[in-house]
Amino acid sequence: MDADTFRAHGHQLVEWIAKYLEHSSDYPVLPRVAPGDIAAALPAHAPEHGESVDEILADFERVLVPGLTHWNHPGFFAYFAISASGPGILGDFLSSALNQQAMLWRTSPSATELEAVTLGWLRDLMGLPSTFDGVIYDTASISTLHALAAAREMKVPNVRVKGLAGRADLPPMRIYCSEHAHSSVDKAVILLGLGQDAIGHVPADKNFSMRPDALRDAIARDTRDGVLPLAVIATVGTTSATSIDPVPAIADICEAHDLWLHVDAAYGGVAAILPERRAILDGAARAHSLVVNPHKWLFVPFDLSVLYCRRMDMLRAAFTLIAEYLKTPEQGVAQNLMDTGIQLGRRFRALKLWMVLRYFGAEGIRARLAEHMRLAQLFAQWVDADPHFERLAPVPFSVVCFRAKPSRADAQGADKQGADARDEASEASIDRFNEELLDRVNASGDVFLSHTKLNKQLVLRLAIGHLRTTEAHVARAWELLRAHAAALDARSA
Amino acid sequence: MDADTFRAHGHQLVEWIAKYLEHSSDYPVLPRVAPGDIAAALPAHAPEHGESVDEILADFERVLVPGLTHWNHPGFFAYFAISASGPGILGDFLSSALNQQAMLWRTSPSATELEAVTLGWLRDLMGLPSTFDGVIYDTASISTLHALAAAREMKVPNVRVKGLAGRADLPPMRIYCSEHAHSSVDKAVILLGLGQDAIGHVPADKNFSMRPDALRDAIARDTRDGVLPLAVIATVGTTSATSIDPVPAIADICEAHDLWLHVDAAYGGVAAILPERRAILDGAARAHSLVVNPHKWLFVPFDLSVLYCRRMDMLRAAFTLIAEYLKTPEQGVAQNLMDTGIQLGRRFRALKLWMVLRYFGAEGIRARLAEHMRLAQLFAQWVDADPHFERLAPVPFSVVCFRAKPSRADAQGADKQGADARDEASEASIDRFNEELLDRVNASGDVFLSHTKLNKQLVLRLAIGHLRTTEAHVARAWELLRAHAAALDARSA
Repeated sequence: MDADTFRAHGHQLVEWIAKYLEHSSDYPVLPRVAPGDIAAALPAHAPEHGESVDEILADFERVLVPGLTHWNHPGFFAYFAISASGPGILGDFLSSALNQQAMLWRTSPSATELEAVTLGWLRDLMGLPSTFDGVIYDTASISTLHALAAAREMKVPNVRVKGLAGRADLPPMRIYCSEHAHSSVDKAVILLGLGQDAIGHVPADKNFSMRPDALRDAIARDTRDGVLPLAVIATVGTTSATSIDPVPAIADICEAHDLWLHVDAAYGGVAAILPERRAILDGAARAHSLVVNPHKWLFVPFDLSVLYCRRMDMLRAAFTLIAEYLKTPEQGVAQNLMDTGIQLGRRFRALKLWMVLRYFGAEGIRARLAEHMRLAQLFAQWVDADPHFERLAPVPFSVVCFRAKPSRADAQGADKQGADARDEASEASIDRFNEELLDRVNASGDVFLSHTKLNKQLVLRLAIGHLRTTEAHVARAWELLRAHAAALDARSA
Repeated sequence: MDADTFRAHGHQLVEWIAKYLEHSSDYPVLPRVAPGDIAAALPAHAPEHGESVDEILADFERVLVPGLTHWNHPGFFAYFAISASGPGILGDFLSSALNQQAMLWRTSPSATELEAVTLGWLRDLMGLPSTFDGVIYDTASISTLHALAAAREMKVPNVRVKGLAGRADLPPMRIYCSEHAHSSVDKAVILLGLGQDAIGHVPADKNFSMRPDALRDAIARDTRDGVLPLAVIATVGTTSATSIDPVPAIADICEAHDLWLHVDAAYGGVAAILPERRAILDGAARAHSLVVNPHKWLFVPFDLSVLYCRRMDMLRAAFTLIAEYLKTPEQGVAQNLMDTGIQLGRRFRALKLWMVLRYFGAEGIRARLAEHMRLAQLFAQWVDADPHFERLAPVPFSVVCFRAKPSRADAQGADKQGADARDEASEASIDRFNEELLDRVNASGDVFLSHTKLNKQLVLRLAIGHLRTTEAHVARAWELLRAHAAALDARSA
């Protein structure tokens, strides 16, 4: 593509994106397409002859835009709301053009060193000590995978060379996490060859936080049974309830048993940038590793996950492997990012993080995080004050777990025998009510909320985290929830 | 960032990138910085107050640009040369702005379905049968990791749940690959808990292709010794010599022993888009999986790797794990990308591949690949015709392996005893000569070549793959090599 063609279409896209970001709320958050619609609208084969960018962008508008879920919509309240901020998009644009591949220091000194510098900035902002080194991966799944690989390296003699299979010297092993830990722990444990049976799900208390006494008991039981404890994952901001595991008490236990402690702060960790919320990372300095995702609640376009590690030597012991063609004079002098993990190639992800941190500044980031938490508290107050709704979990960050309380939820249970059956039928009925409420509210196109289960109950989640979300958007969600709940209630009455 | 600020700086970056791509050859390919220079020029802490994009971009120019390795320079001949093409950059720009996170069909129908469609296009272009489904990952390391995880799932009973450790029912296992296979195989085998001892490096023939007889012998020996063979990796375009393993013969062996066959065509696979080169993938239709990297030799900005798999059911059996909050009505109707691997979140990578395939068309891609191969043949002819150089491997794709032959290479060996010692000293002397030659040529700033070792000899590699590389750039590399070799030779004479 010649420079003028690139210029013309680059400018066209800048205009398109600027307008898109400004008017993202004009789109329905959830697209109105059915499975297969997009594929059916596209040709079955690549074109034989090249096409113009105009033709391609016309199809982008016609076919692909109607099938987008608008993560940049200020009414996106599902999962964890994220933002592609202006400086983040611009930084990523440069990364794509520069096409750095930072496997070695030599293949991109700037990508290699900017990664170390920006991760130092973020570490300091979060109040983590300089005993942590950082490395950027794509996703928290990959960060946690590497943390657990390092834990395995530390605890299992010679695992890099000898592996786990066919070894009479190795007992079964265990990795502990709360019953509310993220599924990426399961996937990592599967991949590492430990098997899902190696996961010890530790019960949580009524606030959905891991019970240290239960962890201690599980370790004692396993040790007695000849199972080798390897590591514990403590979560600061679980995916469902955004609950916080008691890291200091868990760190005590890990130190007593020489276990790797990994803190999953993928979502919640950035809240520690606020001095008044610093305490959420109490004890984290004693962890071996911690994951935090700037692509979640730090306005960086997807993907960019950070693993901080106090034992980077273990990660390197597990994965350093220098093929002949990758030997350079800088070896031993400069850090080569390929030594810190499974991926050889590394995109220049640090650039977008650097631009976001500089553009907003610490002050700007604190203000935005604080506002999101204020909005969550506000919504929680509305829920608490309304007899037709109830809140189902504390709100330590920017996510509210709640549900509607239909007035006749127990109707279907009335003809069943006994209180338990009636309760169960009633719960099932409340679940169905909330499921339908969620569908109706999401069908509005104005908002998108997601659900989860806590204590076997269907829970609606309102997750605030997008840069452009204001009180008006949260109020709109509340208005929709109340109106549809009332209508549903009236129908079943 | 308001829309006008985004517009202003977006347009500014479009101009910067257009100029950069047009004039990338004005930069030295390898930056002239020492380890630590970049970090030292950056502040130790994030700014407290937000800064303007002008300030940030000024530092980008001042500090970061001098530390870039210019992968987009037409004189980039190291490793595998890659390209951030115009349509690829524009597609990736949109991806960053749209911030799709395609874990579920629901979270981005367009990203989910465009991935399936474009991977169908590429599969057809490469002549692979529709028995292969595709999935996009970031890197070939991750693609190969997933292929081997699926192989483990297929061959090891109950490995997902029970793992590998502490199981008396499991023997040691083996995964076979050529001695020239990529280091990502080693890293995957380590991660999977099989241990490096589980890698069976099969000897290659004089053309650096795996010897099927040696593979057959290794499997027989292992089976006799109670070792369980799991999988074989055949490489089409090895990293050092770009050699091709005999896939049909290897497929015969895999079928006879019920082994998973993974074809690593990360670099070379795209050459099959040329009808006259279709034969490089002979036998690949019988493989269980195949990796090809559009971010290598298909003009797509880093990162985008494709895994084609004939047993996607095995991959899903290993990794499908649906947390409550990820349950959607589309489950079972639409494909959810999270089920096909370790990463939950997926960036909208298919968009840039779609734009590249449409912009160039099949015809345009064939023309560019053919031209790169023509240039490689031309360079190989120059080497072959020059008595001061020698070629060290066949040239099946776009990479030439060669070295200079200093006229007095045996001088240092002359006073040693015996022919072997003399040969060894002579080889060491030739290696040093070529090492110095490489350093001098790379110091020019006009080109960047890398090295490897074949038959214990230091080998220089000229890898052609950048879109803007022309015969003039290849001729410049040859001119530099000849001039510096002559100067070095004169010095030592």
